[in-house]
Amino acid sequence: MVNLDEIYTELKKGVSEIIDEEKVKNLIKNFYENGENFYVKIGMDPTAPDLHLGHSVTLQKMAFLQRHGAIIQFLIGDFTAQIGDPTGKSETRKKLSKEIVLENAKTYQEQVFKVLDREKTIIMFNSTWVDNLKVSDIIEIASTYSVARMLERDDFEKRYKNQTPISISEFLYPLMQGYDSVEMKCDIEMGGNDQKFNLLMGRHMQRIYGIKNEQAIITMPLLVGLDGVNKMSKSLNNYIGVTEAPNDMYAKILSISDELMWEWYNLLSTKSLKEIENLKNSVKNGSIHPKTAKENLALEITARFHSQELAKIAKEEFDKVHSQNQLPNDIKEFEEKDGIWVIEAIVKCKLATTNSEARRHIKANAFSINQKKSNDENLKFTKGEYILQIGRKKFAKLKVI
Amino acid sequence: MVNLDEIYTELKKGVSEIIDEEKVKNLIKNFYENGENFYVKIGMDPTAPDLHLGHSVTLQKMAFLQRHGAIIQFLIGDFTAQIGDPTGKSETRKKLSKEIVLENAKTYQEQVFKVLDREKTIIMFNSTWVDNLKVSDIIEIASTYSVARMLERDDFEKRYKNQTPISISEFLYPLMQGYDSVEMKCDIEMGGNDQKFNLLMGRHMQRIYGIKNEQAIITMPLLVGLDGVNKMSKSLNNYIGVTEAPNDMYAKILSISDELMWEWYNLLSTKSLKEIENLKNSVKNGSIHPKTAKENLALEITARFHSQELAKIAKEEFDKVHSQNQLPNDIKEFEEKDGIWVIEAIVKCKLATTNSEARRHIKANAFSINQKKSNDENLKFTKGEYILQIGRKKFAKLKVI
Repeated sequence: MVNLDEIYTELKKGVSEIIDEEKVKNLIKNFYENGENFYVKIGMDPTAPDLHLGHSVTLQKMAFLQRHGAIIQFLIGDFTAQIGDPTGKSETRKKLSKEIVLENAKTYQEQVFKVLDREKTIIMFNSTWVDNLKVSDIIEIASTYSVARMLERDDFEKRYKNQTPISISEFLYPLMQGYDSVEMKCDIEMGGNDQKFNLLMGRHMQRIYGIKNEQAIITMPLLVGLDGVNKMSKSLNNYIGVTEAPNDMYAKILSISDELMWEWYNLLSTKSLKEIENLKNSVKNGSIHPKTAKENLALEITARFHSQELAKIAKEEFDKVHSQNQLPNDIKEFEEKDGIWVIEAIVKCKLATTNSEARRHIKANAFSINQKKSNDENLKFTKGEYILQIGRKKFAKLKVI
Repeated sequence: MVNLDEIYTELKKGVSEIIDEEKVKNLIKNFYENGENFYVKIGMDPTAPDLHLGHSVTLQKMAFLQRHGAIIQFLIGDFTAQIGDPTGKSETRKKLSKEIVLENAKTYQEQVFKVLDREKTIIMFNSTWVDNLKVSDIIEIASTYSVARMLERDDFEKRYKNQTPISISEFLYPLMQGYDSVEMKCDIEMGGNDQKFNLLMGRHMQRIYGIKNEQAIITMPLLVGLDGVNKMSKSLNNYIGVTEAPNDMYAKILSISDELMWEWYNLLSTKSLKEIENLKNSVKNGSIHPKTAKENLALEITARFHSQELAKIAKEEFDKVHSQNQLPNDIKEFEEKDGIWVIEAIVKCKLATTNSEARRHIKANAFSINQKKSNDENLKFTKGEYILQIGRKKFAKLKVI
């Protein structure tokens, strides 16, 4: 027997907010009791077909729901994309041809099916119904919402206050997006937590148009990017694209901080809450090294978008490169006075027993300062800290005072 | 030869504002030089088919323009009228069927052709083009204007500040109204001076859609109503409907103040500025009684909406009734104490020489108090002012203190 309570607990993992949680639970329960599927809407911007890990947060939650009865309706808002801006003022809104929109949609599908179950996903285009709307329908839709309420939307409010122009058409997009929930069968709508206003618009429109059981809403937090500070985005270049090469993906994930790692575990891993908790405890009590936990996360994510095998290869490559450059944790430290000669320093730091041995290492191109080869036998160190290295394994830290 | 300068002077009679006066002058000049007509747009609200004199101010100016080359395009905004309000919140916006709109339009035409030249008037319905617009067109149109600029419109600004809801569809109406000027050939647009924002929108849309020679704009002031204070409107009941009976129309015009009369002359009479000036001077120097000037205005307006003959009859009727009830300007005043007996009062006020004569008048039904017959021989007056009257010609004012 399925444990509904466990599913409900997992449902809430990493989630920002659920509006009408009872409804979501009942949909899952109904699936298990009566085998009935339910329908989850997610909107896609057809102008930017490249997904990154930030997008996959929501995709992962949808994949979870698919395992418990959801049919995902991937809604491609193609109709707005085909609208130009006659003023030419908006740089963000370029007119896209039907062909380009379809092409973008295709790329999108290839990417989302790395996370979603293709068999339980429907791709829809809102032009299907929007193209058939009359002008009177649009005006009717626009009459259901007030200017003041629209200006309460966070970004509109800011722009209005800062006197950054908002075109009136921008007020129509969220309305149309909400209206999509009237045309689709839509039990739940999902999105990032920056989308909450738009998702609520779906409920508003369903209510206005007499749909009794309004859609529930699940919002997901925005994933913090590689810098550990800002939300992941292309423009900040703190992102990992889902189509990035396995080696790059793996290496980038290994570069994040331990703190961010746990956030990513919550939002990106398919491990259960309990498993993540256990892992955390093991790291805390020292039975697992934090780097190992990070490697496992990197392996899991890389495998998702590529394959287990490519993920393993990525790890091996990474280890090979990085073990060469890696500094041991227990380098001995030596203090010398300003102006010390390099040969003397090598001997004092116990990297050679004699001056001539030291000279031989330099001549053999085996001596490095701060991980860069050095051939200068006459060098004198000025004040500062230096990592001296002979070959691959012998290190010393030289502090010149 | 036609005197263009005289026409230009008359053109500006009563006008609030002309935007691009040069263009208007050139259109008239071109008509006289090359016989080419020009096109004037005026919008009509299809929800309220009853015109009053306030509306006729603009109609008169259009009739003037028709005499100098204008083809009037009477635009019936039928498409918006057919849109309901799904929230049911708006009491002002009731959905009208196509049939009712057409019927209203018919009533409207009957009324406007009392002022306009039917041969130089085209009735248009904006559904002709709006019905063919796609949703993408609407969004394109909406993208040409910013929320902030729209909120600068006087009524929107007030409502926004007062937190009175403005539905987003209300932002679409002026845009659509402006777009009408793109679809029509439109050299000039006219309206009340409260419409200036909407008329400028026509220029905006023409500019956006690449029409080189933007429409000129002529705005007319709002006519002050019978109360001499507020603009004429049905809701304030200070109006004269253009379909009102000749007697009512005539009587109502006679009721206005002398000051308002001159304003109405400017806005409603077809007399030239010079003629009005002459009339004014004649009244000033006493060669014409102000009442005569008012009668002439009442005759002119009543004749316009009915006929010369019906206007004359209205005047005769009015004179007959009012000469009976009219009070002379030189009624003598008498003061008496509280509780004075009616018979005694008649004698004291010198309306009879003896008590028995006074009694006889009352019995003969020839005595009135405040222009109402009175038969009560025992009446005692309480504090106040009374007009006592015997027969048609003898009056006295009684002040009871």
